[in-house]
Amino acid sequence: MKTNPIELGLSKNSTSSTHKRKRGVSILDSFLRIIAFIGTLASGILMGTTKETLPFSTQFFRFRAEFDDLPTFTFFVVANVVVCGYLLLSLPLSIFNIVRSNAKNSRIIFIIFDTVMVTLLTGGAAAAAAIVYLAHKGNTRANWFAICQQFNSFCERISGSLIGSFVGIAVLILLIFLSAVAISR
Amino acid sequence: MKTNPIELGLSKNSTSSTHKRKRGVSILDSFLRIIAFIGTLASGILMGTTKETLPFSTQFFRFRAEFDDLPTFTFFVVANVVVCGYLLLSLPLSIFNIVRSNAKNSRIIFIIFDTVMVTLLTGGAAAAAAIVYLAHKGNTRANWFAICQQFNSFCERISGSLIGSFVGIAVLILLIFLSAVAISR
Repeated sequence: MKTNPIELGLSKNSTSSTHKRKRGVSILDSFLRIIAFIGTLASGILMGTTKETLPFSTQFFRFRAEFDDLPTFTFFVVANVVVCGYLLLSLPLSIFNIVRSNAKNSRIIFIIFDTVMVTLLTGGAAAAAAIVYLAHKGNTRANWFAICQQFNSFCERISGSLIGSFVGIAVLILLIFLSAVAISR
Repeated sequence: MKTNPIELGLSKNSTSSTHKRKRGVSILDSFLRIIAFIGTLASGILMGTTKETLPFSTQFFRFRAEFDDLPTFTFFVVANVVVCGYLLLSLPLSIFNIVRSNAKNSRIIFIIFDTVMVTLLTGGAAAAAAIVYLAHKGNTRANWFAICQQFNSFCERISGSLIGSFVGIAVLILLIFLSAVAISR
């Protein structure tokens, strides 16, 4: 059997370019994981340290607000901490993929865990967003009053802490896309 | 170049078994899509038709509850309808995969869209669950009262409508796993 040397050269070139592209995807993967890690960490810390005491009080009301007054916010913090921890643990495997760019199994593991984590993070963020919305706007039909009229700084922090989580969600979705494309190549 | 006929036979056998396994995955994919479709459709309809008027009233309160009194429930219905529509549209492609079990690109498209849809559905379901929890338990710190004490049937329906959505989320996560495994084979 005879092989055309030009064909062989072309195939070698194409393998090398695929290899380079896969390495590029792996580097992007690690970079995105770091961004999502920072986002979820910031969200968790920001929400977990939210507390406000108003400088006045009456006989009937306690003018103090803390994030764990609402169980939803506790769940939000837990979800962010879990995803943040997962991203930190997944980083070594992601860096390992840069070196060994053909590791298919590790990418499948990434898709599976990333999907579970994006669901957990979305659950936490959406539930917290629903309560933040209620805190801002209230609901006259259900007789739930907007607590943000009193707790200004509290509401600003809980609203702000959602941003990091939503950045984390977007990045995790992007990571799943990247893994899927990398596997198929 | 000589080829061992026994080796050739083995390779043919293994290709046929891989083909069969891929077809099995595709059939399971279509089946799961139908389950998720039914779940999200039921959730959307159940929530979208929830309404309760109590048989008594006072001068100050309107004892009527409808799902769209709370914007979160409207979002829940929209999310379920969108995911339900997507699942219906994706079914022909999924059935096409049973016939052409080597279609890699369609599986990548599935991973990408399934991921977006599971995020949307989780967002809707988690936000609605947060409000349903509040309706059941209330929150004394924020002075939000449990409306379920009055609106019993309303609360039962909004709680029940979450089930289909959460089944849909679980099935969509499973579908992403299946697609990832099918691509890698």
